[in-house]
Amino acid sequence: MEKLKQRILSDGRALSESVLLVDSFLNHQVDPVLMKQVGEEFAARFSGAGIEKIATIESSGIAPAVMTALLMNLPMVILKKQVSAIMKEGIIQTEVFSFTKNSCYLLTLKSQFIRPGERVLVIDDFLANGEAAFGAIRLIEQAGGQVAGIGAVIAKAFQDGMKKLRGAGYRVEALAPVKSMRENTIEFRED
Amino acid sequence: MEKLKQRILSDGRALSESVLLVDSFLNHQVDPVLMKQVGEEFAARFSGAGIEKIATIESSGIAPAVMTALLMNLPMVILKKQVSAIMKEGIIQTEVFSFTKNSCYLLTLKSQFIRPGERVLVIDDFLANGEAAFGAIRLIEQAGGQVAGIGAVIAKAFQDGMKKLRGAGYRVEALAPVKSMRENTIEFRED
Repeated sequence: MEKLKQRILSDGRALSESVLLVDSFLNHQVDPVLMKQVGEEFAARFSGAGIEKIATIESSGIAPAVMTALLMNLPMVILKKQVSAIMKEGIIQTEVFSFTKNSCYLLTLKSQFIRPGERVLVIDDFLANGEAAFGAIRLIEQAGGQVAGIGAVIAKAFQDGMKKLRGAGYRVEALAPVKSMRENTIEFRED
Repeated sequence: MEKLKQRILSDGRALSESVLLVDSFLNHQVDPVLMKQVGEEFAARFSGAGIEKIATIESSGIAPAVMTALLMNLPMVILKKQVSAIMKEGIIQTEVFSFTKNSCYLLTLKSQFIRPGERVLVIDDFLANGEAAFGAIRLIEQAGGQVAGIGAVIAKAFQDGMKKLRGAGYRVEALAPVKSMRENTIEFRED
């Protein structure tokens, strides 16, 4: 997605070979017009895939996911990293390791929100090593759903999440697959 | 907002006199069409208020806030409850007590995302005792911004957040102000 890549080049910053700062338009400050365009791009790529629900992982995936859900006219479900006291009935959980935070968290879903056989598209802001995506897949499949695709706004294609997901048979679409980063240099690859 | 109140009556559930479950359309499963309508309603109520930025609190406020931001054609900033390892430079923080979780968290903002004098509208899913809203206000004002309004999708008007915020001079708009709840009964009041 050319417009997104241009925005990453103009406003993003490679802090190291693996850390990409995009907090001025994607995950701290958010550009809603860009999020709508991201939603349009996901809706176009996954049209005809029989998607019935959008899922995302709390919390940076919510903005692009809700735009995708609006444009595809589908409900969205937020897989939770934090569970409130009133969220107790009928939940399923899976442990996910976060490399960014160097700790584990419990990803949680009230299983009634994924119906058996439902075809689910998982949208997230970043795809790196795939830990979060595989956690989402475990929960959705445990609830009886079918993961029909993974959409990442940005993929660190030099890490192995994308390869592992595709190797496991999942369709992955990354709008901006980053091939390599060095301080002040970001290179994309064709997906 | 009549459509929202009807949805709360049909799909929400009062678990007690103070706990309202709306996780089938607002904060776990999310109805993006309703979120767009919520955004339209906030945009209409705050048109002419000179709003320059939308702020919200991670994470259930993000969906209604990003729709409001899109419809008002403004950037959004997400005040963070969880800070990633790469979010270190130029941050300001304030402690917020959560009654739901019975614990404190540090609400965090990279202060560059609120410009001095900027007029900010804070959007959140719930307004109850006002702890989160006052935390957002402290951060925005510390960064030099001006809180021009608070928009809550649902307000528990029987708790004192709305009164305290208005008493402190802030404009509050609640799309569904709940007057009282008992098991299986939810009553709204005029705002």
